[in-house]
Amino acid sequence: MPVPLQDILDRIATQMAALPDKGQVAAYIPELAQVDPNQFAIAVALPDGQVHTAGDAETRFSIQSVSKVFSLALALGRQGDQLWSRVGREPSGLPFNSILQLEHEGGIPRNPFINAGALVVTDAILDRNQPREVLGELLRFVQSAAEDSDIRINEHVARSETAHGDRNMALAHFLAAHGNLQNAPALTCGTYFHQCALEMTTRQLALAGRFLIGGPTSPQFPQLISPNSVRRINALMLTCGHYDGSGDFAYRVGLPGKSGVGGGILVIAPGRASIAVWSPGLNAQGNSQLGTLAVEQLATATGWSIFG
Amino acid sequence: MPVPLQDILDRIATQMAALPDKGQVAAYIPELAQVDPNQFAIAVALPDGQVHTAGDAETRFSIQSVSKVFSLALALGRQGDQLWSRVGREPSGLPFNSILQLEHEGGIPRNPFINAGALVVTDAILDRNQPREVLGELLRFVQSAAEDSDIRINEHVARSETAHGDRNMALAHFLAAHGNLQNAPALTCGTYFHQCALEMTTRQLALAGRFLIGGPTSPQFPQLISPNSVRRINALMLTCGHYDGSGDFAYRVGLPGKSGVGGGILVIAPGRASIAVWSPGLNAQGNSQLGTLAVEQLATATGWSIFG
Amino acid sequence: MPVPLQDILDRIATQMAALPDKGQVAAYIPELAQVDPNQFAIAVALPDGQVHTAGDAETRFSIQSVSKVFSLALALGRQGDQLWSRVGREPSGLPFNSILQLEHEGGIPRNPFINAGALVVTDAILDRNQPREVLGELLRFVQSAAEDSDIRINEHVARSETAHGDRNMALAHFLAAHGNLQNAPALTCGTYFHQCALEMTTRQLALAGRFLIGGPTSPQFPQLISPNSVRRINALMLTCGHYDGSGDFAYRVGLPGKSGVGGGILVIAPGRASIAVWSPGLNAQGNSQLGTLAVEQLATATGWSIFG
Amino acid sequence: MPVPLQDILDRIATQMAALPDKGQVAAYIPELAQVDPNQFAIAVALPDGQVHTAGDAETRFSIQSVSKVFSLALALGRQGDQLWSRVGREPSGLPFNSILQLEHEGGIPRNPFINAGALVVTDAILDRNQPREVLGELLRFVQSAAEDSDIRINEHVARSETAHGDRNMALAHFLAAHGNLQNAPALTCGTYFHQCALEMTTRQLALAGRFLIGGPTSPQFPQLISPNSVRRINALMLTCGHYDGSGDFAYRVGLPGKSGVGGGILVIAPGRASIAVWSPGLNAQGNSQLGTLAVEQLATATGWSIFG
Repeated sequence: MPVPLQDILDRIATQMAALPDKGQVAAYIPELAQVDPNQFAIAVALPDGQVHTAGDAETRFSIQSVSKVFSLALALGRQGDQLWSRVGREPSGLPFNSILQLEHEGGIPRNPFINAGALVVTDAILDRNQPREVLGELLRFVQSAAEDSDIRINEHVARSETAHGDRNMALAHFLAAHGNLQNAPALTCGTYFHQCALEMTTRQLALAGRFLIGGPTSPQFPQLISPNSVRRINALMLTCGHYDGSGDFAYRVGLPGKSGVGGGILVIAPGRASIAVWSPGLNAQGNSQLGTLAVEQLATATGWSIFG
Repeated sequence: MPVPLQDILDRIATQMAALPDKGQVAAYIPELAQVDPNQFAIAVALPDGQVHTAGDAETRFSIQSVSKVFSLALALGRQGDQLWSRVGREPSGLPFNSILQLEHEGGIPRNPFINAGALVVTDAILDRNQPREVLGELLRFVQSAAEDSDIRINEHVARSETAHGDRNMALAHFLAAHGNLQNAPALTCGTYFHQCALEMTTRQLALAGRFLIGGPTSPQFPQLISPNSVRRINALMLTCGHYDGSGDFAYRVGLPGKSGVGGGILVIAPGRASIAVWSPGLNAQGNSQLGTLAVEQLATATGWSIFG
Repeated sequence: MPVPLQDILDRIATQMAALPDKGQVAAYIPELAQVDPNQFAIAVALPDGQVHTAGDAETRFSIQSVSKVFSLALALGRQGDQLWSRVGREPSGLPFNSILQLEHEGGIPRNPFINAGALVVTDAILDRNQPREVLGELLRFVQSAAEDSDIRINEHVARSETAHGDRNMALAHFLAAHGNLQNAPALTCGTYFHQCALEMTTRQLALAGRFLIGGPTSPQFPQLISPNSVRRINALMLTCGHYDGSGDFAYRVGLPGKSGVGGGILVIAPGRASIAVWSPGLNAQGNSQLGTLAVEQLATATGWSIFG
Repeated sequence: MPVPLQDILDRIATQMAALPDKGQVAAYIPELAQVDPNQFAIAVALPDGQVHTAGDAETRFSIQSVSKVFSLALALGRQGDQLWSRVGREPSGLPFNSILQLEHEGGIPRNPFINAGALVVTDAILDRNQPREVLGELLRFVQSAAEDSDIRINEHVARSETAHGDRNMALAHFLAAHGNLQNAPALTCGTYFHQCALEMTTRQLALAGRFLIGGPTSPQFPQLISPNSVRRINALMLTCGHYDGSGDFAYRVGLPGKSGVGGGILVIAPGRASIAVWSPGLNAQGNSQLGTLAVEQLATATGWSIFG
């Protein structure tokens, strides 16, 4: 790569700042609706421990659905393939919060990244334990992955999610009606809303994603999951990580990624880097507008596609 | 890779022969229904021109939907991104021959690998030309890719497809009703049925797939499409190549692939190899039962996953 | 009824003429698109042979889907309950030309009044006979019912329907793919397009509908179907006669009816009268805008609801 | 009618007792699962105050969804046509507990007799009042209609419904997510579960249904709703009263009816009679197996079809 990575990131940040259309900030809770849409950050963590950033990379944001990657890693670590009896591995082909397919397929969500599937994953790690305990474990997992203890759950956001959580409550009761929920709907949803309220900086998110880079392990950070799980989570991120925009992301960017309604995206270049982008404005598919563009440019500039 | 590739292929072929459940041969036309389900072949073509095979790699079979990769390459070469105004790039999330989503989305098929999308692609390369002419061009494209002129279209199969083609005729009329077909439904379907009747050996298919390996070009064969198109077709194969089993294939195999109802699968290990497998028995998703298992074993043995 | 029927009809015709919003004329074929939307007619045929009319009751129009009532009567007469193995009796709950439910339910259309169901009915009366023969029989049935031989099929309309018939051709091929079509799709569709091109005046339609009045038979006209079939066709008209507006029509009018895209509606007041209305402009559900209003007013003025 | 009504009822009861297939008793709550499937009752209340019964007409049963007729009458009485901004009037065309169509149509249930629609109706009569108060009012309405104060709500059944109410809770949260619920989901559902736990005898149900007979008012009982509302509720019962079996019931019986999962059906012969049947075993559509047959025989024997 002739152009230094830092130069690429700086150039991307400059270009993003100049774009007039920054998408629409999520409006369903005030905590997200009030975020300034003019923010942008990108961070790349390399296997050797280096991190390059550009933009507002030290500003905390709500990672929302990006947290599903961490809860899935935890659930797979605990339950292994048993988890797949409760949730599928196929793209949903429908908007992310749909109950349609769930009904058609007997209460088995299509994949762990649509909301219904993520509720099942959270329900699985909750098991019979206390939410507080399980959330503590999830937080420690993320902190270990990022090697940074200054990551937390925002209680205001969690409470606001709960107050506007009818759709997820509907999904949880629906899963319960199909016998696919072990805990009370309010308990599983409460835990899920807290998980989504995880807050960190773009730099921290890039660091926290390193356990998914795979390849020869770096001595810099502990191996949190098996190489096999790394590959499988990346596969799921590629096919299902962007709701009904997953195919388009794979086509344009060519790397596994998971987006959140807070405007963050975690992207993995297998064997090469963990990438985090953040910009609060969303596109029509509910994924960060500038974030998607930025990683597309990064992938083009670095040639980091997994597709040849 | 400590174990030689040829040994890996031989071992896989031996294991496949020993498996009692070989899936169900497609039964909708007699030409497919009469194929012996006990056949199996695997072939790996490397960038340096080497080909390794095991099993019945010199037996011709009907590549059926694998042909959609070649017609898409041809269409993208001719029309570029214009093609995407007529067909989407998202996984379908529904059985491959469904009209459901097509109706919901105004006659724009979800992706070029479901039947409706493939009809649009064929309609696009047909343009205003004669079917015979266009089929000749497609055949020459495949022959060039395989560097082998002994590849042909089986007229018996094409005629049988036509006689049992009501579902595709329905799709074509439906596309026409939405203004998304340039040629008469019978013309586009006729061309499509001939395209699906392409016949070649497993070795030939592996050779024909080399143009999708990407990476530094080999002097062995001409570059048929741009590096960018290579990456994009691989991305589409990964997210949409196995109908409603695409997510599972990505999860288990970790490589882009396109299956056909004749039991063939073309799989690409970007930068490394073009792989073809063939075994006529299909699994519940309509993809080759042994073929899927075989490439899963090959990916594990070689470590050729694109996901780390 | 204190107010004479003729006065009621005259008053309704006057009110309809004064309404500014006359709906949208069907635009998919030029023969319908060119009809003057300012036309309106209403006719009531009583069991004793009397007919009262108001408006343009002597103008011919294309009865389109109203013809489904006559083809169903013919099919039931010939095949009896056997017909119900090929078509259901439930409201569709979806726009009239949808393929959705058809796919979901294995090629059995929900009822004989949605297009797919009407194609099955036409296919059933076609049996193995020539279209010309069967259309002749259908025409004679309608002429007998109206006791008027001056009713005909408009060949221009039939040909135009054929030229714009991709959606029905798609349905027919789809039915064929499910083994629910006895004749070639083009043959069944061709017959169906001619059936829909039946042309008559509003007065003639009211007369033709008398065989569905039921109750003590009038000596005025021959009994064309059994009393049991009369009741059953009326039940189907009530639950399914207005596509996805059937519930609303039952709620507002309280009488069985069948609408056509040409703006005609045949309405039955069981034991009392056969009513025809016609006005070419359609409402959002694809039923005559003024026609629906007019029969609602007629039902209110006469107290002819079947619901008490 | 040459045969006396009492003789018809006795004959029907005898025939029903002899039928071997009595359907499947609802199993989702123990209170319904434990009911003896060999019970059958029929009762006909005439406008002149006479009641004829046969079978176990003095045994109380859980009227379940038949209660939706009474809550709808109450809601229409209070809110009039305003109610229709929150719920539609079209048949659902889908199994009764489906969320599918609800999602598709922005949280507006198709009609007041599917569960989602009934929840909206209950939510509407609940308004901002206490559930206890509103349930008292509903109970008094039913008691007035039956002119019998010995009708009550079974608390055991209500509690059991609540314990197994995940699907209705999902619907309620879903309605809330679409802004179509005024009260907390648990409150509306709790009220609804109590309403469904209304318990009465078949004789009492026939008496309670007399307010829907319409026609010239009987001095025997007070007019509870307007003649217009009578007709409209009957229309809704005919098109939507038996979930996805409504068309079939209209075709076979030819009278408006509303069934409940407890095996009861209230059927109205407009201008003639209020009919109640009860037998706990259900058919594939979830309606009383023997009850449906019995009213079909009654309609045939009496000629009470509304369709001529």
